[in-house]
Amino acid sequence: MMIDEMWLQKNKLKKLLSQEVFFLDLVKEDAVSLRLRKELIEWLGLTVSTDRAQATIVLVVNPELSVNAEAYEIQENLIKGASSSGLLYGFYNFLRLKLRGKKLEESSEPSQALRMINHWDQVDGTIERGYAGESIFFGTPGSNDNTDTGSFALREIKGDIFRNDFTRLEMYGRFLASIGINAISLNNVNVRGLGTNLIVSPYIEKVGEIARLFSGFGIKTFLSINWAAPRLIGGLRTSDPLDEAVCAWWKKVIGHIYDVVPDFGGFVVKADSEGEPGPYQYGRNHADGANMLAESFAPHGGLVIWRTFVYNSQTDWRNRKNDRAKAAYENFMALDGDFADNVILQIKFGPIDFGVREPLMPLFGALKKTNQMMEFQVTAEYLGHQIDLNYVLPQWLEIIHTDNYGLAKDTVKENSPLAANSGFVAIGNVGMDENWCGNKLAQANFYGFGRMCWNNDLTAAEILREWLDMTFVDVDERAKKTIYELLMTSNQTYEAYTTPLAIGNMIVPHYHYGPSINGYEYDRWGSYHFADRNGLGVDRTMVTGTGYSGLYAPELAEIYEDINKTPDELILFFHFVNYDHLLHNGKTLIQTIYDLHFEGYNKVLEFQKSWQALEGKIDEITFRNVSQRLELQVQNAKNWRDQINTYFYRMSGVEDKYGRKIFN
Amino acid sequence: MMIDEMWLQKNKLKKLLSQEVFFLDLVKEDAVSLRLRKELIEWLGLTVSTDRAQATIVLVVNPELSVNAEAYEIQENLIKGASSSGLLYGFYNFLRLKLRGKKLEESSEPSQALRMINHWDQVDGTIERGYAGESIFFGTPGSNDNTDTGSFALREIKGDIFRNDFTRLEMYGRFLASIGINAISLNNVNVRGLGTNLIVSPYIEKVGEIARLFSGFGIKTFLSINWAAPRLIGGLRTSDPLDEAVCAWWKKVIGHIYDVVPDFGGFVVKADSEGEPGPYQYGRNHADGANMLAESFAPHGGLVIWRTFVYNSQTDWRNRKNDRAKAAYENFMALDGDFADNVILQIKFGPIDFGVREPLMPLFGALKKTNQMMEFQVTAEYLGHQIDLNYVLPQWLEIIHTDNYGLAKDTVKENSPLAANSGFVAIGNVGMDENWCGNKLAQANFYGFGRMCWNNDLTAAEILREWLDMTFVDVDERAKKTIYELLMTSNQTYEAYTTPLAIGNMIVPHYHYGPSINGYEYDRWGSYHFADRNGLGVDRTMVTGTGYSGLYAPELAEIYEDINKTPDELILFFHFVNYDHLLHNGKTLIQTIYDLHFEGYNKVLEFQKSWQALEGKIDEITFRNVSQRLELQVQNAKNWRDQINTYFYRMSGVEDKYGRKIFN
Repeated sequence: MMIDEMWLQKNKLKKLLSQEVFFLDLVKEDAVSLRLRKELIEWLGLTVSTDRAQATIVLVVNPELSVNAEAYEIQENLIKGASSSGLLYGFYNFLRLKLRGKKLEESSEPSQALRMINHWDQVDGTIERGYAGESIFFGTPGSNDNTDTGSFALREIKGDIFRNDFTRLEMYGRFLASIGINAISLNNVNVRGLGTNLIVSPYIEKVGEIARLFSGFGIKTFLSINWAAPRLIGGLRTSDPLDEAVCAWWKKVIGHIYDVVPDFGGFVVKADSEGEPGPYQYGRNHADGANMLAESFAPHGGLVIWRTFVYNSQTDWRNRKNDRAKAAYENFMALDGDFADNVILQIKFGPIDFGVREPLMPLFGALKKTNQMMEFQVTAEYLGHQIDLNYVLPQWLEIIHTDNYGLAKDTVKENSPLAANSGFVAIGNVGMDENWCGNKLAQANFYGFGRMCWNNDLTAAEILREWLDMTFVDVDERAKKTIYELLMTSNQTYEAYTTPLAIGNMIVPHYHYGPSINGYEYDRWGSYHFADRNGLGVDRTMVTGTGYSGLYAPELAEIYEDINKTPDELILFFHFVNYDHLLHNGKTLIQTIYDLHFEGYNKVLEFQKSWQALEGKIDEITFRNVSQRLELQVQNAKNWRDQINTYFYRMSGVEDKYGRKIFN
Repeated sequence: MMIDEMWLQKNKLKKLLSQEVFFLDLVKEDAVSLRLRKELIEWLGLTVSTDRAQATIVLVVNPELSVNAEAYEIQENLIKGASSSGLLYGFYNFLRLKLRGKKLEESSEPSQALRMINHWDQVDGTIERGYAGESIFFGTPGSNDNTDTGSFALREIKGDIFRNDFTRLEMYGRFLASIGINAISLNNVNVRGLGTNLIVSPYIEKVGEIARLFSGFGIKTFLSINWAAPRLIGGLRTSDPLDEAVCAWWKKVIGHIYDVVPDFGGFVVKADSEGEPGPYQYGRNHADGANMLAESFAPHGGLVIWRTFVYNSQTDWRNRKNDRAKAAYENFMALDGDFADNVILQIKFGPIDFGVREPLMPLFGALKKTNQMMEFQVTAEYLGHQIDLNYVLPQWLEIIHTDNYGLAKDTVKENSPLAANSGFVAIGNVGMDENWCGNKLAQANFYGFGRMCWNNDLTAAEILREWLDMTFVDVDERAKKTIYELLMTSNQTYEAYTTPLAIGNMIVPHYHYGPSINGYEYDRWGSYHFADRNGLGVDRTMVTGTGYSGLYAPELAEIYEDINKTPDELILFFHFVNYDHLLHNGKTLIQTIYDLHFEGYNKVLEFQKSWQALEGKIDEITFRNVSQRLELQVQNAKNWRDQINTYFYRMSGVEDKYGRKIFN
């Protein structure tokens, strides 16, 4: 098995640089500078001289370059970093420019201070919402069969829970650093079984080994915790955050972690959500819970990353005033200003759950006194499981540039009391599959997330061009253009044949792939479409609906409140709309539904045709990998087209204007 | 743990008979007469004399009593059997009369020659569609946690696959014989893993031990086989029934079985269905497959029981002419007369799958030259999982008295060339739960199935009275009346709040409990309701539909073909009916749907109230067991009521005539 090198192809880089002589001009040696030497000497096999005069390329650490220690500057044969981390980023970006044949001139510092990947890896080697094989951190050597099936019970574990594949982990650290990621959490936020024990011996020692590897790449390591750990593994009778014994237990545990992992990042916490334990069960609020942990972290410089994905997963569909979209706002808005400085709220970009289309979560812009991170999902839970093509950057960039309360892309930073404790975070999409992401083209989202964090001003097109140039180095421009066009339209295509107009969760429950129009309609998870013979959609207006639209700044609220002002893409998220209602596109709702599903499916057929034409023009492995995925995507798109069209035809009784085949 | 004795309560029987002296007048000693002695002496601890003069009760085998060896006659102090089996049945029926305080006079012979229970038990101890704990045959001693979840992968097995609980098995044999069951298959018809190996050493030896125990109770033991066994465990490259090596392999395996189990019953075969292998994959038909096996069984007197539950589980919902209801007929009707004498077709009572309401399978009456058995399901896969109360005898008896081609209850016998090779069979409902059936009241279905097989003329009410009198011996009449009324209306109540009017499979996929209106609507299993804004139902008429109604005898076909003649209970099975169509009940379809769901739920509340009034009047264990189940049933009925009413309100837009609450 040849593990895919993604966009960092050693032999190609080596060839470009083999004539060069490097010289490192450092202020001091540290883990990162040592990694930089390793990258040059071990990884690429290049020449590093101790004599500056012989050098053709000089790498310099210069703290005066910027107050931002991660900043770098590239000027032809000179790479500068404000710190060794800055220099490492400068080096990888130098490689990018070199591979793309671009002018070696760039000056840059990251838009977001924290650029984090959350792993939902479990100690049995499975990954919740993983579509690319088993965990690279945990699991049995050689095993790669267990992927997400929507059932999250742990398998039986025998022996060591760690996979111990440090070759993989080193490659992974390199990918992460090359796109600017500087924080990672290793384990699923739903912490089960031995996952609870990762924070104590003998497990924390192995976490320490992994953390040391990542430190060299400028990456801090975090762990997700189970809120009930004091009870589950501490032998206490309570996990009440205001209980003295509980505080003392956490203090001891955290102190021990720093003995073993001196640069440990902190904890990621999912509490009081979807059945997980939390402070609510002791009558405490989220600030009580987070601040208690934060106090023990403060002396060590550690962080408490507290997720706001908190909602009552026992919603009764009978009550249409219940609105899961309001849950995070209602749980956290009143606590603005109550959290300690080393607490960060991790807030999903939208109010529901990484959906095909959601508006911006209204907490962004509204929260003014709380450190915050915006959460994305690189793994394609709702976006096609890395089977269907879906380059998601267009969606993410639209979200981060949505303006609520006069702020746009800098919302999270400017509204965080400590800018250093703010940023972007995403659930990762890699696993033990040969190409890391199941679908080779899904690497673009992993790459894109990092690049978006680093530079909020890049466009989806620019990021994709970068990725394509680096990934398909020797491929001719026409072929690259084909892939470019396919990916650039993939997100809107997926939306078209699945759930356009922000309809919501019409997916197979738990599994979240393929259509199940009423899969969640009468269930307890709080995501409904309310389709009837007249129309569909969720009335979230203030006047007649759940009042959700009123959570936005007045300028946005006014738009979302008004069915005639709400953009088509979001209309069913905010309004119950009759089938014969005319959208901004000049067509009725029902005709729009039909059109998008017919067009979406046809577009996938075009994808397939375009891809077939690439045979022989790109490497065989990638060609076959994506061909197989497209085969499945065609089936999926067909199922969506036919089930959605038939369902709404049966409901509405309205014929397709163009007489296309709708099964009755 | 005290294992429930069901209707055979030792201490009560002992008390009634302790003054008696028994004498056995046998023609010869055999396994069954030995069991009879054991029942008297070991089980009940009664006095058996070798001196007829001392006897107060005499048990006689008299072959002249009847040509039917299973016949018995009870005359006060004399119990006669036409064979030792007949005498054993006479003895248990004597106990029944005694326990009920009835006159000791009865002459009887069985209506059905074969009276069989199929177990869907798996070698890992789980039971497919089991709702009463793990298998009594297989599994780890002490384990009883694994019940049906709709996922049928085998668990890992360590060590012996057999449970070896012969105390349980002896009790079970007694229950079976007491209600006249004379055949049993031990393992699931979907034969997986080591289940395939049960027919060979070292497993067949343990099957032999079980079979010997059951022989004493007059019960023959069968095994389900995997059609691909020659390939899977025989080392052959094919399972083609016309391949000589395949025939030779089966002959050798069957010969060996009879060396170990001299009175082995035969095989039960599910072939070419729901993904299981079968003769179709070699271009052979079902007669080829069955007759090949039958040839090897013939010298040993063994049977091949071949299931007709064969359908294409890859149905495309887009084609409304596809009709799973026709599948068995289409696969088997043309083969009538082609099967060997020792082959029996096992045919489900209805054309789909043990549903809440189905018409009679049209093969009954139409098949004239093929031995046949009618198949029922005691385990409540579609009828409430033994959580919801559902005394199913009213439904079964209606089915067996349905007249197709001039025959009614004797169809299966009269149309079978060898009457001895015909009968009724059911999937059992017992497991390792303390009360065997999960719900104490579900014992009535197990009891009732046996009684219905024995005597087709018993009514549901008579059977229930028997069971109640024997089960609640010391309970006062008023309390028994309460339970009687509750059970007698339970089947129609379940139908009312779930899927009345033969709507079909609106259930949670795989799991088959609780509502999921579109759970199967766009799936590959071929059971659809086609609801739209105008109405719902499946058009199975000859003129405009799938043509299924034409498979019946002209008198029945004429009724089912005509929407105005089809009984309300079956109307949506045969017709697409508009919401405003007036049913025979004088109400519109939509109002009938609303009424039944409101009334059904209210009835369950009444059940609960009636049951609560029994506290202190019946034993505490039963009281609590059923109370807990009723709690769950109320929730289930509420979910059904609200989801069905809301769904069809959203679809039809028609308000409830009485303004009851329908959530919108």
